[in-house]
Amino acid sequence: MASQTEPKKIIIDTDPGIDDAMAIFLALRSPEIQVIGLTTIYGNVYTTLATRNALHLLEYAGRTDIPVAEGSHVTLMKETKLGVVDFVHGTDGLGNQNFPPPNGKPIEESAAEFLVNQAKANPEKVTVVALGPLTNIALAIQMDPEFAKNIGQIILLGGAFEVNGNANPAAEANIFGDPDAADVVFTSGADILAVGINVTHQVVLSGSDREKLASSKGKFAQYLTGILEVYFSYHCDAYNTNGVYLHDPTALLAAVDPSLVTCTEGAVRVQTSGITRGLTLLYNKQKRFEEVTEWSNMATVKVAVTVDAPRVVKLVMDRLVA
Amino acid sequence: MASQTEPKKIIIDTDPGIDDAMAIFLALRSPEIQVIGLTTIYGNVYTTLATRNALHLLEYAGRTDIPVAEGSHVTLMKETKLGVVDFVHGTDGLGNQNFPPPNGKPIEESAAEFLVNQAKANPEKVTVVALGPLTNIALAIQMDPEFAKNIGQIILLGGAFEVNGNANPAAEANIFGDPDAADVVFTSGADILAVGINVTHQVVLSGSDREKLASSKGKFAQYLTGILEVYFSYHCDAYNTNGVYLHDPTALLAAVDPSLVTCTEGAVRVQTSGITRGLTLLYNKQKRFEEVTEWSNMATVKVAVTVDAPRVVKLVMDRLVA
Repeated sequence: MASQTEPKKIIIDTDPGIDDAMAIFLALRSPEIQVIGLTTIYGNVYTTLATRNALHLLEYAGRTDIPVAEGSHVTLMKETKLGVVDFVHGTDGLGNQNFPPPNGKPIEESAAEFLVNQAKANPEKVTVVALGPLTNIALAIQMDPEFAKNIGQIILLGGAFEVNGNANPAAEANIFGDPDAADVVFTSGADILAVGINVTHQVVLSGSDREKLASSKGKFAQYLTGILEVYFSYHCDAYNTNGVYLHDPTALLAAVDPSLVTCTEGAVRVQTSGITRGLTLLYNKQKRFEEVTEWSNMATVKVAVTVDAPRVVKLVMDRLVA
Repeated sequence: MASQTEPKKIIIDTDPGIDDAMAIFLALRSPEIQVIGLTTIYGNVYTTLATRNALHLLEYAGRTDIPVAEGSHVTLMKETKLGVVDFVHGTDGLGNQNFPPPNGKPIEESAAEFLVNQAKANPEKVTVVALGPLTNIALAIQMDPEFAKNIGQIILLGGAFEVNGNANPAAEANIFGDPDAADVVFTSGADILAVGINVTHQVVLSGSDREKLASSKGKFAQYLTGILEVYFSYHCDAYNTNGVYLHDPTALLAAVDPSLVTCTEGAVRVQTSGITRGLTLLYNKQKRFEEVTEWSNMATVKVAVTVDAPRVVKLVMDRLVA
């Protein structure tokens, strides 16, 4: 067994993305964890741009030692029409700041190969923090029948449990991005913690938090101050609020400190077609059904139901202002 | 305008059903309303048996003046494989009590024709209390473009809003019985109040309430004591509880006294295919979506979110014990 002081090995699967950038910087400032790689995926942007942004963020942070593995450009069912959301994160995914191209390149391994190989090399020791659609994770599960067992935990930002979605009233954006992949992941038998918008909508970075970031001389605070403008503007339009939801940072911090959330457990399935495509449904086992249902005998996952929002925001601020 | 003392005209669309029998008896004991007809539908039982049971219940109550119109035997899409639930209500729908056949017969009009004609004859004055799958109501909407406007209100027992279903984890039984019909009804523009199991699961007739019914000499109390055995037994198996949910009586009483529930408003759509077939999803308008969604520009309905459960149970007991 690892000693308690050995940092947890983390792979961040990411589509940067403004809140992805926050989560990545947070991870690099969190001594409890060791980022052993980034894998990229479409979502907030297309995969090519996600890879560029991942490399750029690591270069800005001075952490080019961390490998970036490029992920899938299409959904698990090979759909190529992807619902990227440039109105949320800017056309460059990073607040329209016109950053220069990175010098580095992704490694040769694909995201799925990297996930499989790292899990195999460090059985039950690697945590994946998945911040985008779940295509890479589903591909890893399909590539290696042992992956679900080898991976330590998959903490995913995804789902809208018993609340409206944010892609549409039925679906949260990451699950909506690849519902088939999400259903593969949820039913894989891996140790999964789903952090959905039912929880992350409670975690808000306020306008005054943003001012504190702006007045900090910290390198990450300065960077984030620039890119947050677009994200605040989107939240103002969509939610009529002067604040932004800390989706990805909350999921990342659930890996850093599991006590930040409380969970329920049950089988989760994803609707893959029709008007509620991308809807996540947790069977809470309060009723025993007479007949076999689509949730019967399915693997159980953890779903976050409460979050210590003030503590999450404080951790975000403390670590990023510095 | 009708004076306040004129009772509200009610048509009960019903698939009796043990809690349907309670709701019908309650209606006949409620001076605030006047039952102008029963229409029948499959659900707890097949439509033929629903008609037989409706006639039988009115004969037992001495109210053969109330017409019974037989409803559809198939779903809106003409599916004939119906998920009747004899393990909930008994194979006869009324607790396996082996009641004699009724003497009366249904009227010549179909349920949909009766609904259309009554709404036309009493514009905006008739309330439909729909206690089964919504096929008849959808047929009335399709039969007469004016029906949605002519009908006063449709109070329906249906849906599982932000909770697990009771047919399966995704769907409540009445909506699951005919999801296509339900989507037609919810989007029809009629004045609709949906009373879902998120609310009715708070309204429980306890074992001791049942003993009070059993010790009453009242005609309805005596009848219900006999048929409730099967319903209690089902709840014990499915929910591990000594009590039964008062689904249909709650919806009926929402017509008698609207102050028993509080509501939210929004567009409701029904998933009609896939693993969450029959799921009801209310768009709460908390987010403004960039793109048009399946909920955009859809008619708004009322959805019950709280219920004064003690007052509902007291009304049920007071009126049925007598």
